[in-house]
Amino acid sequence: MDRMITVNVELGERAYPIHIGADLIGQTALFAPHIAGSSVTIVTNTTVDPLYGDTLRAALAPLGKQVSTVILPDGEAHKNLATLNLIFDALLGSRADRKTTLIALGGGVIGDMTGFAAACYMRGVPFIQVPTTLLSQVDSSVGGKTGINHPLGKNMIGAFYQPQAVIADIGALRTLPARELAAGVAEVIKTGAIADAGFFNWIEANIDALNRCEPEALTEAVKRSCEIKASVVAQDEREGGLRAILNFGHTFGHAIEAGLGYGEWLHGEAVGCGMAMAADLSVRMGYLEEAARRRLVDVIVAAHLPTRAPALGEAHYVELMQVDKKAEAGAIKFILLKRFGETLITQAPDAEVHATLAAAV
Amino acid sequence: MDRMITVNVELGERAYPIHIGADLIGQTALFAPHIAGSSVTIVTNTTVDPLYGDTLRAALAPLGKQVSTVILPDGEAHKNLATLNLIFDALLGSRADRKTTLIALGGGVIGDMTGFAAACYMRGVPFIQVPTTLLSQVDSSVGGKTGINHPLGKNMIGAFYQPQAVIADIGALRTLPARELAAGVAEVIKTGAIADAGFFNWIEANIDALNRCEPEALTEAVKRSCEIKASVVAQDEREGGLRAILNFGHTFGHAIEAGLGYGEWLHGEAVGCGMAMAADLSVRMGYLEEAARRRLVDVIVAAHLPTRAPALGEAHYVELMQVDKKAEAGAIKFILLKRFGETLITQAPDAEVHATLAAAV
Repeated sequence: MDRMITVNVELGERAYPIHIGADLIGQTALFAPHIAGSSVTIVTNTTVDPLYGDTLRAALAPLGKQVSTVILPDGEAHKNLATLNLIFDALLGSRADRKTTLIALGGGVIGDMTGFAAACYMRGVPFIQVPTTLLSQVDSSVGGKTGINHPLGKNMIGAFYQPQAVIADIGALRTLPARELAAGVAEVIKTGAIADAGFFNWIEANIDALNRCEPEALTEAVKRSCEIKASVVAQDEREGGLRAILNFGHTFGHAIEAGLGYGEWLHGEAVGCGMAMAADLSVRMGYLEEAARRRLVDVIVAAHLPTRAPALGEAHYVELMQVDKKAEAGAIKFILLKRFGETLITQAPDAEVHATLAAAV
Repeated sequence: MDRMITVNVELGERAYPIHIGADLIGQTALFAPHIAGSSVTIVTNTTVDPLYGDTLRAALAPLGKQVSTVILPDGEAHKNLATLNLIFDALLGSRADRKTTLIALGGGVIGDMTGFAAACYMRGVPFIQVPTTLLSQVDSSVGGKTGINHPLGKNMIGAFYQPQAVIADIGALRTLPARELAAGVAEVIKTGAIADAGFFNWIEANIDALNRCEPEALTEAVKRSCEIKASVVAQDEREGGLRAILNFGHTFGHAIEAGLGYGEWLHGEAVGCGMAMAADLSVRMGYLEEAARRRLVDVIVAAHLPTRAPALGEAHYVELMQVDKKAEAGAIKFILLKRFGETLITQAPDAEVHATLAAAV
């Protein structure tokens, strides 16, 4: 499998390409067009740098740029202001200027933090995403959402900021732990469920190939997910309306993550369970047929994702969901499913929400 | 003096009005059109809240919004990530949502930090500037530059983010210490010097009235300064080129501030001295006539601003200027004066820079 596919995210002057294929991290030609200044700072973590840091630095070497590397601690628990400041310290310490390009080499946490650092450093410098997890390849590398967590809420501090390019190396997924692969499949399932019944059928048929990390299946899943997300984002860059559908499963999922403490469950695991809960609420409110909910839960289970929620207490769940960014004046907005490919955004009666919470534990 | 003047900053969908006049903080009607959500968070400091906090809260009361106040420590020394985080803590603690409006009540530090917090909180919420110092009325309230300092450089972390409106209450300047008034006059002088010879003549003729805090003179100075800056910013919102001329005096000035430690000299004092240094360099490089330099220095002195630079060592000055945001790959860009109303941006030979530094101490 040597083909490379490119998905273009159409955002006018902020448009950028997503290159998808095997062993792309080492290809100088993919980086060359996107690095204008004289220096590059790679931001990565203690897990990814030993795996792909040297490959990336070797790819950059022929470009003759000054290259430095910032190695952050690994994990969602470090996606905070203190770790962000380590990036700023490194940039100022290496005299990074307004034309310095940041390269995010790692998963969603690295991508979100590096993107936010790029948005804020000198009020904005260019950056390139090199996502090394399935989750970040299908999700956080498309759409320009960057940011960090706050103890009271996930991604509460951030910016909309687009990369110059995304280099999604399918080969990097070979070293991904099974649990992280499954967490990425959760977002693939979500994308099919909300936007494309045909793609959802494809996922059901190919779930075992995805679990086995087969390159052809992964390439197709990343391509279709990126195309769908890119189309939604192009229509609603700053989340005025349509884009909110991408948060299917995330209202419950964010509450799980915040309630357990970030990093306890992976984001994709929480979204997997959150989708099962959102589907349950969709059935209770009369929008979705039980058979469709069952199909969704079956594919979540087949992806080795959790469908039973942790027992945080119903009142605490509601409290956590009220600080969701979609909430307004404390009113929670849910993304619900009508059928595969069709969603609606609505508030829900307390009784139905509590029934879903009670059934999910 | 009861007239209110409005300057419109023309930035397309990000356009906003600057209202200038006496006793505007108490006028409900000025705030009403700009607060869409159900809650407001006032960000102010320990000096300004006792002076104007109650007036502002009384003005907001008829709007029926939930109003909370965050009171930060006063001073440039607190314009950092830790203080910024106090704003986020307060916003999340009071369940601020995406439609919560932040109101910056204070000087440039409060305005820059509140604007940056508004840019980042949930990836962007609306904010209103209520600048209570002359400096912030003429300078930081126009142009959308927000941010915080880093130990290695001023305003190194931030965003371009426009307010919904600016309410510049000339009456608030009555409580301004003389030293802070002078610091504001520095930016007024700068604006005349770089962009409008007629306005520079007006400043020379009215410098004593400005020093005496006469409302008519202050209103005119704020209006002309905002008009000029708004015109420059409208042509170059993200500082691609023209806008850099607004940094006249700032390359030397920022080095003074960073070298002494933020807060030792006021920003406007550093800019006053920095303009004298930039004019000296302009003469040495053959761009400016000595007589014009003399006129500029005379008006800086008449405004009770420093023109002698602190002895930081020439090498340290150069080092500090190399981290200026205008620098590229360590090459320092200077904004120099050709005549009143005309500038150029250029690098300068080391020998000339050192001569200016030696002469300035």
